[in-house]
Amino acid sequence: MSEDRECAMNAETITAPIHTVEQGVFSARSDFLAIEEPLQLCLNGFPLTITMRTPGSDLDLATGFLFSEGIIDDARQILSMHASEEETSEGSNARVTIRLRPDVVPDPRYIRRNFYTSSSCGACGKLTTDALEFHPCRPLSCSGPRFAADLIYRLPDLLRCAQGTFERTGGLHAAGLFSSEGNLLGLREDVGRHNAVDKLIGFALRDGTVPLRDSLILVSGRAGFELVQKSVRAAIPILAGVGAPSSLAVNVAQRFGMTLVGFLRGQRFNLYSGDWRIA
Amino acid sequence: MSEDRECAMNAETITAPIHTVEQGVFSARSDFLAIEEPLQLCLNGFPLTITMRTPGSDLDLATGFLFSEGIIDDARQILSMHASEEETSEGSNARVTIRLRPDVVPDPRYIRRNFYTSSSCGACGKLTTDALEFHPCRPLSCSGPRFAADLIYRLPDLLRCAQGTFERTGGLHAAGLFSSEGNLLGLREDVGRHNAVDKLIGFALRDGTVPLRDSLILVSGRAGFELVQKSVRAAIPILAGVGAPSSLAVNVAQRFGMTLVGFLRGQRFNLYSGDWRIA
Repeated sequence: MSEDRECAMNAETITAPIHTVEQGVFSARSDFLAIEEPLQLCLNGFPLTITMRTPGSDLDLATGFLFSEGIIDDARQILSMHASEEETSEGSNARVTIRLRPDVVPDPRYIRRNFYTSSSCGACGKLTTDALEFHPCRPLSCSGPRFAADLIYRLPDLLRCAQGTFERTGGLHAAGLFSSEGNLLGLREDVGRHNAVDKLIGFALRDGTVPLRDSLILVSGRAGFELVQKSVRAAIPILAGVGAPSSLAVNVAQRFGMTLVGFLRGQRFNLYSGDWRIA
Repeated sequence: MSEDRECAMNAETITAPIHTVEQGVFSARSDFLAIEEPLQLCLNGFPLTITMRTPGSDLDLATGFLFSEGIIDDARQILSMHASEEETSEGSNARVTIRLRPDVVPDPRYIRRNFYTSSSCGACGKLTTDALEFHPCRPLSCSGPRFAADLIYRLPDLLRCAQGTFERTGGLHAAGLFSSEGNLLGLREDVGRHNAVDKLIGFALRDGTVPLRDSLILVSGRAGFELVQKSVRAAIPILAGVGAPSSLAVNVAQRFGMTLVGFLRGQRFNLYSGDWRIA
């Protein structure tokens, strides 16, 4: 797929006629909506999953998804990957077709989880709690940079300034990757927060910068355990969320030695684990 | 399962030692975290799914899930249902075991979707976009009550006042069911917004009040298409969200004649479809 083709498919919003009802007064206007549409991933000739996602960065999403799911460890294991879109009477059928290098044999524990994921779903397809073991994640290194609290306070504003679609729709989650100097290394948006993180990590994988041992990932919402898990898998030592973490997110962060920041708002945040990385 | 047992499992939060970092100053304190833990559903002797959820109202969640997935149409199709919890070294294994009446033969199209769902996932397990047909949903009736705009403005405050856990953790999604007079008929919370809606609809099913033709459902976050779909399935004519809807949410609401309200904040909301139900 040419880059042109990927750009043409990058429309993340549509406009729709709506009514605003303010103090009892109806006014007709048009508004931007974040697009939520299915994307099918086909792996080595077989359908692997359908995810509900916001179009754009589909190759990043596919790469990040395969990595998060433990199917690949490196973007170089992908032999070929292309996106296609077919218009039908029911709407458009978007697909990313992936072939792995012949020597890459995915662990069947990970590949058996064929499924349709909603836009907010991070991990599906398991049948018993015994199967809830973690993807191939390793404890994070204790070396690496420390992040200044003053810098962390500024990150949500930096993310918002860089976000295009959210400003229009208010309906997208964002994930941003920052250096310890506060430089924005990458940003991806999606109606699903798991997709936003998969797109961002997929971008880094394709860019050859994973493991991301010197980076911080900032998410615009709450931090559930899958976001922690995906970040640990990419060796990102700090996850910061604007919202609350769940109990399992804190548990997994502690287990893998990740620094977990929550409720990052104004000149304040909460620190749930790994305080030694904050200067 | 006795009601006592269900109450004993209703702890939705835990306390954890954290640090608050405010204007560069670290202070140790303890904070409440919303619990996120796996729940396994077993149907007729077989594992059906694992969902990541906040403990509490597990029987409502199981009932609402089976209904949303098209496996049952009515709570009376459930012959027996009980919750159990087993402590292991890895944590607790919670399970709800359901038996359907012998004459209830679930449509294999719906039951084949065995999967593990994340706390924010509404619908998983499908392999091709062709399989993305909608659950047994019917167009909503055009009769039924109208809701006054003035009343709709007040609902988020009513929901927040009734929410217990969110106030402590800031980490739970809520779904509330209201009458056209603004009475709160039910409220459920969860780390996953799909679970909150499944719990609420499951509560109404067990209460014998579905179809909910005279009700409005309010969700504390964004409105993705699965929330619209679940609400249509329960015949709820109005879905209001504090956040943005996605394009597919609007599309499905229009298709089934549902009134979809978004960005409900202060004395203002947006109306994406079904304006005739607003007075």
